[in-house]
Amino acid sequence: MANNNQKIPYKIYLSENEIPKTWYNVRADMKNKPAPLLNPGTLQPMTAQELSAVFCEELVAQELDNENPYIAIPEEIQNFYKMYRPSPLVRAYCLEKKLQTPAHIYYKFEGNNTSGSHKLNSAVPQAYYAKKQGLKGVTTETGAGQWGTALSMACSYFDLDCKVYMVKVSYEQKPFRREVMRTYGASVTPSPSDTTQVGRKILAEHPGTTGSLGCAISEAVEVAVTNPGYRYVLGSVLNQVLLHQSVIGLETKAALDKYGIKADMIIGCAGGGSNLGGLIAPFMGEKLRGEADYRIIAVEPASCPSFTRGVYAYDFCDTGMVCPLAKMYTLGSDFIPAPNHAGGLRYHGMSPVLSQLYDDGLMEAVSVKQTDVFEAAEMFARVEGILPAPESSHAIRVAIDEALKCKETGEAKNIVFGLTGTGYFDMVAYEKYHDGLMTDYVPTDEELAVYRAKLPKV
Amino acid sequence: MANNNQKIPYKIYLSENEIPKTWYNVRADMKNKPAPLLNPGTLQPMTAQELSAVFCEELVAQELDNENPYIAIPEEIQNFYKMYRPSPLVRAYCLEKKLQTPAHIYYKFEGNNTSGSHKLNSAVPQAYYAKKQGLKGVTTETGAGQWGTALSMACSYFDLDCKVYMVKVSYEQKPFRREVMRTYGASVTPSPSDTTQVGRKILAEHPGTTGSLGCAISEAVEVAVTNPGYRYVLGSVLNQVLLHQSVIGLETKAALDKYGIKADMIIGCAGGGSNLGGLIAPFMGEKLRGEADYRIIAVEPASCPSFTRGVYAYDFCDTGMVCPLAKMYTLGSDFIPAPNHAGGLRYHGMSPVLSQLYDDGLMEAVSVKQTDVFEAAEMFARVEGILPAPESSHAIRVAIDEALKCKETGEAKNIVFGLTGTGYFDMVAYEKYHDGLMTDYVPTDEELAVYRAKLPKV
Repeated sequence: MANNNQKIPYKIYLSENEIPKTWYNVRADMKNKPAPLLNPGTLQPMTAQELSAVFCEELVAQELDNENPYIAIPEEIQNFYKMYRPSPLVRAYCLEKKLQTPAHIYYKFEGNNTSGSHKLNSAVPQAYYAKKQGLKGVTTETGAGQWGTALSMACSYFDLDCKVYMVKVSYEQKPFRREVMRTYGASVTPSPSDTTQVGRKILAEHPGTTGSLGCAISEAVEVAVTNPGYRYVLGSVLNQVLLHQSVIGLETKAALDKYGIKADMIIGCAGGGSNLGGLIAPFMGEKLRGEADYRIIAVEPASCPSFTRGVYAYDFCDTGMVCPLAKMYTLGSDFIPAPNHAGGLRYHGMSPVLSQLYDDGLMEAVSVKQTDVFEAAEMFARVEGILPAPESSHAIRVAIDEALKCKETGEAKNIVFGLTGTGYFDMVAYEKYHDGLMTDYVPTDEELAVYRAKLPKV
Repeated sequence: MANNNQKIPYKIYLSENEIPKTWYNVRADMKNKPAPLLNPGTLQPMTAQELSAVFCEELVAQELDNENPYIAIPEEIQNFYKMYRPSPLVRAYCLEKKLQTPAHIYYKFEGNNTSGSHKLNSAVPQAYYAKKQGLKGVTTETGAGQWGTALSMACSYFDLDCKVYMVKVSYEQKPFRREVMRTYGASVTPSPSDTTQVGRKILAEHPGTTGSLGCAISEAVEVAVTNPGYRYVLGSVLNQVLLHQSVIGLETKAALDKYGIKADMIIGCAGGGSNLGGLIAPFMGEKLRGEADYRIIAVEPASCPSFTRGVYAYDFCDTGMVCPLAKMYTLGSDFIPAPNHAGGLRYHGMSPVLSQLYDDGLMEAVSVKQTDVFEAAEMFARVEGILPAPESSHAIRVAIDEALKCKETGEAKNIVFGLTGTGYFDMVAYEKYHDGLMTDYVPTDEELAVYRAKLPKV
């Protein structure tokens, strides 16, 4: 058990008036701006007008804003944030003791809300701006279900219709996630479905298909653009999402500053980049402005290694190729990662902002194997109490590895990582781990080359 | 959306050093003490020595202590509490707005920990004292799974073996709960099992049985008393459990006092009484000492109405009749409540402490129907964000009803209720509600009379 006589509490809670009143836009401090989204037809940068057909106007403005460092958070959004924020920054005393490391480990815990993850931070503004624009509703896709749940909650609060296309295999395997969304009044449709043209086409061609994220995106976009009063929203990858998620990093930094703690490294899991981009934002800002230095580490699954084994190139964001092209670290939009229980990290690409920062050498990336991740997850659960999401556990794995290095060297480094959510809806994965049935798949160089060869020539 | 300019924050968080350092023992202030447990053979009060064969020594002392108002919380337990406490007292601004009530509604939220409920508050000391006594492990039963999960977490932290007997039907229908317990290293056995004499006997007599809580208790007790170094632990009903759970009420009162708020009524769901007894403890103390007055309301399911339709009499705590007799409000130990999704409230009896207080007219009780409960649960989830446990939603239902009464009368009463946990593992129940398949069963007077007639003659 940890020592009781510490100056730093187990959980650093900020007060409600310390919740950020502005988001921080790291793009303003980037010398090399992220490359613009391209119209897949013309290969020209997407204009605000073009983007407005799919996204809400205010969100388009945020998407394209590479200049303003701070963007005010509207009061209505602040009020929703107050229902579940500030989230605690936890000193992992028990994990440190278990590892017998001189390192000080901190984690920002974003799982204390019903969506179970950080996704709510961007769902709230996206629903708010849709409502403000007078829209009737929004459409989206969901795989693992965290984003769909978060959006359902936000839409219920702002009295907005919410249509979720859920990858059919998840819809069937995760009925509980589906029920949470229904509790919040969302309509949840297994994808592919007969409610859209693209869905019917896919069903005709592949009658037994269990769906894919790419197909669900295509259906959600079709419904948004063909129904007056609807827009499409997305839970990761986009610049606007990273902007909203900066509340994670801003609160983390405020909590550290309050106790005079200087982070040595910041670790986050990376799928599309929403959590990592938000967590590191203010730290990266200091780094970009030359005010401080930090090691910043992205952790991705070895089965879907966009940063560590992908290429930095323009690619489609979806498998259906209906969305704009983004310049990003990618494995190719046709790449289908092997079954992996961190559904939130199975994306072929990566946030354009993070891709640029990584390409500029401002952050590191490391990939980890699934069974090593679950070993870390279980250890963490047992000593720190919280049962982590498989996605979050990627960051736990590397935080533990870094803490063990500190044990070797005797250094008392300050390790900060993002604990993005809880694993309560991922017990099938834990069961496989307990039963020794979990496998580690790592794509071969030959496999990756096949998908790389299919990248669009831009 | 709620007004931002309130003096009282959405969530009142105490600081870590405001976590109670003593539990409050309401028995010390009771003029009429709860009736003692009786040896089922001799019908004499159970001695400390007799109880020690089944329970840890320190816990036996707490069970029998009707005199000391404050009992120190050991530092090791305080340290564990710091991992998930203090829990927030939330001002339900959004619910108030939705109801358009002048009432001020507050809820103490105990679901922000991996066990998902308040059960951890007593699991931690029970595991701690077992470890301190040098035991190898503890045994228990679990129905819905909250208590088993909480105990698994506590045992994992204190490095204690944990054997959980889980009612077979729950074991099969709630595999995720089972996996959470396995993540914490507990062994989980479906009951009845062939690992005990009583289990084998029941299996021989009823080959296809899906088990019952009574049978699981009998198996857990048998394993505890026949294995050296093991004791049996229980998550509700007992005086010691209510003592530990007083942290809920002490924190609630400290948070209210901090903002000068005087509660008018305190509402809690009641199954065995662990949450309600803990929540009301310090308020009831003031009432007993004549320092203040509060309406205190127990809410129970109409399908299992121990307070509102039971009798105050000595009865068996388990269906197997291996445990001591307790004087309590009971429906009879043979009473099997109709299927109800609030598994934690399906107990035939009630805490002896609460039974005495109720019999003395110091608190009220009300029973509510299941569909009314889920209607309240869904409304609450949509406006307050948190998806509540079915058990907790009984309190929500009555809090809403009382707030609507305030709307009629125009009174700005302060309503405080206990939100004991989250419903993430109860989505089957929500699904039935959404699909219109949920039923309301209320036992007839004739049915209740049958079980009442079987009460032991003491």
